[in-house]
Amino acid sequence: MLNRIKDVLIGPPLPTRQSHEQRLNKVRALAAFSPDALSSIAYANQEIYLGLLVAGSVGLSLAWPIGLAIVVVLAIVAVSYYQTIHAYPSGGGSYIVARSNLGTIPGLIAAAALLIDYVLTAAVSLTAGVDAIASALPGLWPYRVELALALLALITLVNLRGLRETGTFMSIPVYLFLFTYLPMLAYGLFVLWRDGPAAPAVSALPASFQPVTLFLLLHAFATGCTALTGIESISNGVPVFEPPESRNAGRTLAVMAVLMGALFVGSIGLTQYLGIVAGSQETILSALAHRIFGNGIFYFLIQVSTLLILTVAANTSFAGFPRISAILAKDGFLPRQLTGLGDRLVVVNGIVALAAATAALILLFKGNSHLLVPLFAVGAFLAFTLSQSGMVLYWWRERGRHWQVKLIANGVGALATGVTLLAVSVTKFLDGAWITVILIPLFVFVFLKIREHYQEVGKELSLQGLPPGLRPIQKPRLAIPISGVHRGVVDAVRFARGISDDVIAVYVELEPGEGDDLRKKWERLWPDVPLVVVSSPYRSLIHPFLDYLDRVDAGHNDGQQTIVVLPEFVPAHWWQSLLHNQTAWLLKAALLYRRRSQGYQHVVIDVPFHLRQ
Amino acid sequence: MLNRIKDVLIGPPLPTRQSHEQRLNKVRALAAFSPDALSSIAYANQEIYLGLLVAGSVGLSLAWPIGLAIVVVLAIVAVSYYQTIHAYPSGGGSYIVARSNLGTIPGLIAAAALLIDYVLTAAVSLTAGVDAIASALPGLWPYRVELALALLALITLVNLRGLRETGTFMSIPVYLFLFTYLPMLAYGLFVLWRDGPAAPAVSALPASFQPVTLFLLLHAFATGCTALTGIESISNGVPVFEPPESRNAGRTLAVMAVLMGALFVGSIGLTQYLGIVAGSQETILSALAHRIFGNGIFYFLIQVSTLLILTVAANTSFAGFPRISAILAKDGFLPRQLTGLGDRLVVVNGIVALAAATAALILLFKGNSHLLVPLFAVGAFLAFTLSQSGMVLYWWRERGRHWQVKLIANGVGALATGVTLLAVSVTKFLDGAWITVILIPLFVFVFLKIREHYQEVGKELSLQGLPPGLRPIQKPRLAIPISGVHRGVVDAVRFARGISDDVIAVYVELEPGEGDDLRKKWERLWPDVPLVVVSSPYRSLIHPFLDYLDRVDAGHNDGQQTIVVLPEFVPAHWWQSLLHNQTAWLLKAALLYRRRSQGYQHVVIDVPFHLRQ
Repeated sequence: MLNRIKDVLIGPPLPTRQSHEQRLNKVRALAAFSPDALSSIAYANQEIYLGLLVAGSVGLSLAWPIGLAIVVVLAIVAVSYYQTIHAYPSGGGSYIVARSNLGTIPGLIAAAALLIDYVLTAAVSLTAGVDAIASALPGLWPYRVELALALLALITLVNLRGLRETGTFMSIPVYLFLFTYLPMLAYGLFVLWRDGPAAPAVSALPASFQPVTLFLLLHAFATGCTALTGIESISNGVPVFEPPESRNAGRTLAVMAVLMGALFVGSIGLTQYLGIVAGSQETILSALAHRIFGNGIFYFLIQVSTLLILTVAANTSFAGFPRISAILAKDGFLPRQLTGLGDRLVVVNGIVALAAATAALILLFKGNSHLLVPLFAVGAFLAFTLSQSGMVLYWWRERGRHWQVKLIANGVGALATGVTLLAVSVTKFLDGAWITVILIPLFVFVFLKIREHYQEVGKELSLQGLPPGLRPIQKPRLAIPISGVHRGVVDAVRFARGISDDVIAVYVELEPGEGDDLRKKWERLWPDVPLVVVSSPYRSLIHPFLDYLDRVDAGHNDGQQTIVVLPEFVPAHWWQSLLHNQTAWLLKAALLYRRRSQGYQHVVIDVPFHLRQ
Repeated sequence: MLNRIKDVLIGPPLPTRQSHEQRLNKVRALAAFSPDALSSIAYANQEIYLGLLVAGSVGLSLAWPIGLAIVVVLAIVAVSYYQTIHAYPSGGGSYIVARSNLGTIPGLIAAAALLIDYVLTAAVSLTAGVDAIASALPGLWPYRVELALALLALITLVNLRGLRETGTFMSIPVYLFLFTYLPMLAYGLFVLWRDGPAAPAVSALPASFQPVTLFLLLHAFATGCTALTGIESISNGVPVFEPPESRNAGRTLAVMAVLMGALFVGSIGLTQYLGIVAGSQETILSALAHRIFGNGIFYFLIQVSTLLILTVAANTSFAGFPRISAILAKDGFLPRQLTGLGDRLVVVNGIVALAAATAALILLFKGNSHLLVPLFAVGAFLAFTLSQSGMVLYWWRERGRHWQVKLIANGVGALATGVTLLAVSVTKFLDGAWITVILIPLFVFVFLKIREHYQEVGKELSLQGLPPGLRPIQKPRLAIPISGVHRGVVDAVRFARGISDDVIAVYVELEPGEGDDLRKKWERLWPDVPLVVVSSPYRSLIHPFLDYLDRVDAGHNDGQQTIVVLPEFVPAHWWQSLLHNQTAWLLKAALLYRRRSQGYQHVVIDVPFHLRQ
C-alpha cells in the first residue's frame, strides 16, 4: 500500500546501470544550472531598492551606479569560475577546490557555507517567487507562508523522481523567463526614450529616514550582491554535461553570465530612470512591469514567469545540496546514509534533509524573503573567496601555459569577493548575518567530530593487531525466559534443544506461589529441560532475570556468557502491541544496550511467535 | 542518573509484602474519600448562581428551593450507597454492581462513565480551586491554566509516592476546610439574624436576560447536581478501610453525606438571603465569604482552604481511576499493562494516563471550569442510575432480611438519579453533554474490541487441540549477512560455527565487482565458510538478501527456514547510531514483521559487536 503510493508519486525504482545515461546538453544544462543565478535579480533588485528607499529620492538615484559596481564583480567572478571549470573537469565545487589547495579546514568552511547557502537559496527563492505572484494577486498576500510551503512540497516530489525529469520540467520556466524579461527590458528602453527619464515619486519620506552615508551605500551594495548567488553552480556540475564536458560547461557559464548582467543592469537602470517606486505589498520588479506594460496580460505573464523561475531556482539547491553532502559523506564528514543513491538514482536522504531545513526556515521567518536575505550573502561570498584563493594557489603550484595570467585573474576574483565578503559581514551583521557567522564554525566542528568517530570505528573494526579468536565457540549455555506454559514458548524450546543440550527455562515470579503451579505444567511437557523460578520482590521482570544469568555465568567460570533464547510475541497488527507488555523488547534493549558498559556482550536468539489475527 | 531522579521524586521501590499494611482508619478514610464530595459545593453553587443570574433578581431568589431539591436527591443517593457498601464489602463500584446484576454491557457503560468522570473531577476540581485563589488574588486570574497544570503535576507526583502518604497529605486540607467553612456558615447565620435578609443587588440586567421558565429551573437544578459527584467513592474503596470494613465505610459515608448537605444548603441559603452577587472575576463563594468576613485574614483563609480541598479532591480521581482501570484490565477490557503495580505499590500506568487526560482537558478548555461542568454530570448520574438499578435486581434475587425495604430504597434511588440524568442530558446537551454522550459508547466499543483480542490470543496460545511439535529442530541452516570483512563479524561467525556445520555468509553487492575483492579477504580468514555474493541492481540491501534466503529454503525442501545470524553493531553513544546505516535493525524488522503475512517465521540470532568509544 505504502509502496504503491510511493510508486505513483516518485515512480518505480531505476536500476543502477541507467546512472551513466543521465547527461545534459547545453540547452538543458543552462535550464538546470541558471535559474538561481538568473532569478536572483528578483530579490537583489528588491533589496537594493529597500536599502536605498530609506534615503528617499536621493538614495534611489544611486541604484544605477551600485548596479554597475555589482556587474563588475559579476564579470570578475564569472571569469574566475570559467578557469575553475577547466582546471577541475570532474566538478570543482568550492569545497573540492578549497580543500585540495588550502587544506581540510578551509575546505570544510567552504562546505559549511555552501550547505547553508543551498538551504537559503531554496527558502529565499520560494518566498520571493510567492512575493511576485502575490504582487499581481494581492488576495494571496496573507497566505504567503502556505504558498511557499506548497511549492516546496511540489519541487521536493519532482526532485525525488530524478535528475532527467527535473531537467525537462525546468526548461520551460527558464526560457519563458528569458523570453518575457528580455523583450520587457527592450520595450522599457523604448518607453524611456519616448517618455524621457523621471524622478522617483517618493510620496512621503519614510519614518526611518536616513541620510546617504558610505555605510548606507555599502549596505545597499552588499545586499545587491545576492544577485551573484548561484553563479558557481555550473562549476560543481561539470560531469553532468555532455562531452567535452569542460568546454560545454565553460560556454554555458559565459552565456549565463552575459544574461545575468543584461537582466540586472537593464532592470535596475530602467527602475531608476523611469522613477519607479513600489507599494508595501508589491515588489519593485512588479512595479517596473506595471509601469512598462500597464495592468494587462503582459504584466501578469511577467509575474507568472518570475514565480516559475524562482520556483525552479530552488531546484538548484535540490541538485547541489545532495551532491555536496554526498561528497562530504564519502569523505567521512557527514553521516554515511547521505551517500546512498535512492531508488530513482538520486540522493534521497539529502533531498529530504534539504526540504526539511527549507520548510523550517520559511516557517521561522514567516515567509519573508527580506528577513532571510541578510543570512544569505555571507555564505556565498565566503565560498567564492575560499574557492578563488584556492585557485590562486593551484596556478602557483601547477604552472602550465599562461599560468601568470590565470593566477592574476583568480587573484582579482579572490580580492573582489573577499572585499565584498567583508562589506556584507560588517553591514549586515546585526540584520542576521551573525546567524551564518555562528553556524559555519559549528558545522565545521560537527564535520570534524563525525570524521573522528568514523576513524575510531575503522580502528576498532580493523583485523590488524591482536588476532581475533577465530575458533568456533564451545557448546553454548542457553536460557529461555518464559511468561507461562503456552504455544508462544514451544518453538523457542525446540530451537534451543536443537542447538545445545545445556538449556534451562527461567520464570520470574511476581506473586509467591505462581512458580509452583507453572512447574507442574512445565514438567509434563519438557521433563528434560530444568525450570528455574526466580522471585521478584519489587515486581520487576528484567532485573531478577539478568541477576540470575550473572549468577549462572559466575558459577561456570569459563568466560562464556549465557545466551538468551527469547520467545517473542509478534502481533498481527501494530495496535495490538499496545495491549501487551513489551517485556521481550525491554529485555532485548537491556541485553544489547544497558549492560554494555559492564562489559557484557549478550547474544540474543529471537524466536518469534506470530499471532494469526 | 534517571533512576536517582526517580528515587528522589517518588521514593525507593517497596517490596510486594508491604501491600497489605496500607489500611485507613475512619478519620483518614474521610479525608481520603470525601474531598471530591465536600468540595463540589464550590462549583455546584457557582453553576446554580450563573444559571439563575440570567433571569435577574427573580431568578436568584429561586436558588434556595433548588438547593433543597438537590439535598433531597443527595439523601436518597446516600441511603442507596449505604446499602451497596453492605451488600458489596469487597468494593461495590458502579461497574461491579451493574455488571454482576445487569450484565456486561451495562457494566461497561458504567465503567466508561466512571472513567470519564474521574478525569473530569480532576480537571473541574483543579480549575475551580484555581478560581477560588484567583478570586482572592486577582493578579493570578490570567495564569489560571498554568496554575492548574502546576497543581496537577504536584498531585501526580504525590500519588506516584503511594497511598498511605497520600492519605496523610490530604487529611490537613480536608479538616481545614471543615473547620473554616462550618464556622463561617454559623457566623453567616448570625450576620443574617443581625442584618436581616437582603434582595440580591443585581446592578444591571445581563445582556442575555431570560425569563424564568421550567427549562431554566431544570437547567439550574441539573448543573447544581454536580454537588453530588464523589458521593459514590466510598463504595468503591471499602477494602481499604480497617476491619470491620463495611461498618466503618457505612458510618464514614453517613458522616460525609450530613456534612455535604449542611455545607450545601448552608452556603446556598446564605448566598440568597444575604443577597450576594459576584463580579466577573470572582466566584460566588468568594463573594459570600467577603460579605461575611470582609477582606481580612479569615476571608483569605477560606479561599486558601477552598483551593486546598479542591486540589486534594482531584486526588479522589487519582485513587479511583487507576483502581477501576486495573479492575477493567484484569477483566480483559483494558490493556494488561494497567494492572501492573508500580515500584511503590500503586498502579503507575493508570496514574500517568489520568494525569495526561486531565492536562489535555485543562488545556483544551483553557482552564475554565464553567465550560467543563456540562460534560461532568451526565457520566456521574449515568453511573448512579445503573448502580442503583443493579441494586434493585440484587435485592430481588438475594431476598434476605427486610429485602423489600431495601429494594424500595434503591428503587427510589434509581428513579431519582434516572430522572436527574434525563434532566441533565436534555438541558445540558448543547452545552457539552453531547461529548460525554458520544464518548461513552465509543469507550464501550473499545473495551469489547480489546477483550475480543485477548480471547483470540488466549485461543492461539492454548496448548489444547493439535499437539505442537515438541521435538528439537534438526541441525539448523544458518546465514550470516555481512557488510565487509572486519572485527564486527568475527563473533557472529564463531557463534554460527559453534552451533551448526551448515553456515554460509552472504554479501549484498551494490557496485559490480565489490564482491570479488571481499571474497579474497574472506577466504583467507574462514576458508571453510562459503561466501555468497548477491547483486542488487536497485541498491537495496534487504530484498536481495531475503530473496536469496527464499531460494535456499526452496532448494532444501525440508520445511525448515534458514536462520539469520545477525552481526549487530552497537554504538557506545546513542547519537552515534545517526552515523550508521540501520541495516541490522531494518533487516530484523523485515524478518519479524514484514514477512509474517507470507507465513515466514524467522528465527534471528543477534550477535552484538560493541563499539568501545
